[in-house]
Amino acid sequence: MKKNRNEFEIISDFFSPLARDKGSFGLTDDVAVLSKAKGYHFIVSTDMLISEVHFFSNDDPEDIASKCIRVNISDIVSKGAIPKYYFLSIALPKETDDKWIKSFTKSLKIEQKNFNISLMGGDTVSTTGPLTINIVCIGVIEKNKLIRRNGAMPGEDIYVTGEIGSAKIGLEILKKNIIANSDLENYFIKKYRLPCPRNKLGPELINLASSSIDISDGLISDLNHICLASNVKAEVNYSLLPVSNCISQLNLTENQLKNIILNGGDDYEIIFTSNSLNSTKIFDLSKFLEVNITKIGMIVQGEGIEVFDKESKKIDLILDGYKHR
Amino acid sequence: MKKNRNEFEIISDFFSPLARDKGSFGLTDDVAVLSKAKGYHFIVSTDMLISEVHFFSNDDPEDIASKCIRVNISDIVSKGAIPKYYFLSIALPKETDDKWIKSFTKSLKIEQKNFNISLMGGDTVSTTGPLTINIVCIGVIEKNKLIRRNGAMPGEDIYVTGEIGSAKIGLEILKKNIIANSDLENYFIKKYRLPCPRNKLGPELINLASSSIDISDGLISDLNHICLASNVKAEVNYSLLPVSNCISQLNLTENQLKNIILNGGDDYEIIFTSNSLNSTKIFDLSKFLEVNITKIGMIVQGEGIEVFDKESKKIDLILDGYKHR
Repeated sequence: MKKNRNEFEIISDFFSPLARDKGSFGLTDDVAVLSKAKGYHFIVSTDMLISEVHFFSNDDPEDIASKCIRVNISDIVSKGAIPKYYFLSIALPKETDDKWIKSFTKSLKIEQKNFNISLMGGDTVSTTGPLTINIVCIGVIEKNKLIRRNGAMPGEDIYVTGEIGSAKIGLEILKKNIIANSDLENYFIKKYRLPCPRNKLGPELINLASSSIDISDGLISDLNHICLASNVKAEVNYSLLPVSNCISQLNLTENQLKNIILNGGDDYEIIFTSNSLNSTKIFDLSKFLEVNITKIGMIVQGEGIEVFDKESKKIDLILDGYKHR
Repeated sequence: MKKNRNEFEIISDFFSPLARDKGSFGLTDDVAVLSKAKGYHFIVSTDMLISEVHFFSNDDPEDIASKCIRVNISDIVSKGAIPKYYFLSIALPKETDDKWIKSFTKSLKIEQKNFNISLMGGDTVSTTGPLTINIVCIGVIEKNKLIRRNGAMPGEDIYVTGEIGSAKIGLEILKKNIIANSDLENYFIKKYRLPCPRNKLGPELINLASSSIDISDGLISDLNHICLASNVKAEVNYSLLPVSNCISQLNLTENQLKNIILNGGDDYEIIFTSNSLNSTKIFDLSKFLEVNITKIGMIVQGEGIEVFDKESKKIDLILDGYKHR
């Protein structure tokens, strides 16, 4: 690293101030100690993010930090848990300067407050390759309350939070594959760079959702994980899928749009299933938390996913990006 | 990756069979659930290893897997804890083929048995840079029994396990900076590639050691962490430091040797401090577990480290590799 500071100094100057939980020992020991209330379990999620794959090298360090934290938070909250700790390993290219690290850690500090989490440990190394960040997020959940992928039952409703496809449009704008006016560009790029994990909603789903997952690979791909694990089939109404109003202002073909909405990915919204008796409670929760929750289809017996258009005609899903398993 | 298999298939074909603990859900869900006996704490350690920094790209995948696991196990056991779980994130260069992954995971399976740990989750991504591996190791320890860095007291003895400097010699042989006959080369290179974490000894130190650390950066550098955290000074007798008999067969100058022994690193032996009343117990433990444990000096009031030769003459520590803090 281009540096006045060595690894130890980077840790003591930038990362230690973020380690406020007493179990982290201020990053001055070799391990961290986790603690939790009785009757709770720890759950763990981990994601590795690489420059030019999961973000761009010239993205603001603040945005990179936020995205790395948020995609992990999303995993935890989408299962009904409350995030508590995180560990950060970072491989820094040689040209990384102190200014970059300062901005990166400034953003971590803000995200710690946003999500009430504490840095507990990690590793700082130098790499000849791209900036590589591994985050481990540890949350707590009441025993036996985890919302798994495998609980969906025929007859249940399928819901999704927020809006779908906007992050993918942001990515395509950054790649110059979609052109829009600057207001629209900013809107969609922000959706890609700064996902909003549903941290208020997730833990409230514990007694409502029979299965859940967050959308990282794409609506169909991630819903398919639920179907596979639960041994059920999903029927989705394409016209019900929640998309941004701004999408109509983009010059997209019908097929481009379908592909973006169904297979886009990077949304970090929650798909969940629930008994139809819960629909009023879910509607009330949506209003109370000010989070859009949209019913998009139903679970039926069978396997796989079918998506129908307004005229109940099946939409072909063998589109670019759909990972068949 | 050069692959028939995509990320999902790599996970299901190679990594899922390693996930035997029920809290891992066979890697078919988004998070893992940790469980432990009452009265215990979880402790966490994480290390990121990068090709050409922490190992060589043409090393056997078996050795790379072993080293990544073992350096993390070392952190856990050196604090008195028992390793239980690990999470593995791996960024694979495009040219990685299935054969490589098969060998890598075969070795993970062996190490899981060696150390009684289970894969609980992780992430598999593709990188344009060097192979990058992040391991998180989670262990359990009785409440309030963690051996910290900060418990060393004036008057206590300083001990070290195994032998010091051999791993560094192995590294220098691999870098063609030291030449030896092939038997010697194999001996030292193995010390570098396959550290032996003191997993039997570590948990036995709980009621004996007042402070401990494993040697990754070098004897002086890591002992210095103890001195800093404990606010004490260490006096080390150079002639007591345990080194391999084979070292005398190498063509090293006195200064080269001193530098290797004092600042070499990668030993993954344990340095610990203990009240002199415990010396018989430590000697018995050493015999019982068949682990060399050598008294190398004493903790005194003051700060920093002094190393003395046979004639009680101070040895200059401002050598290459010594990280002053």
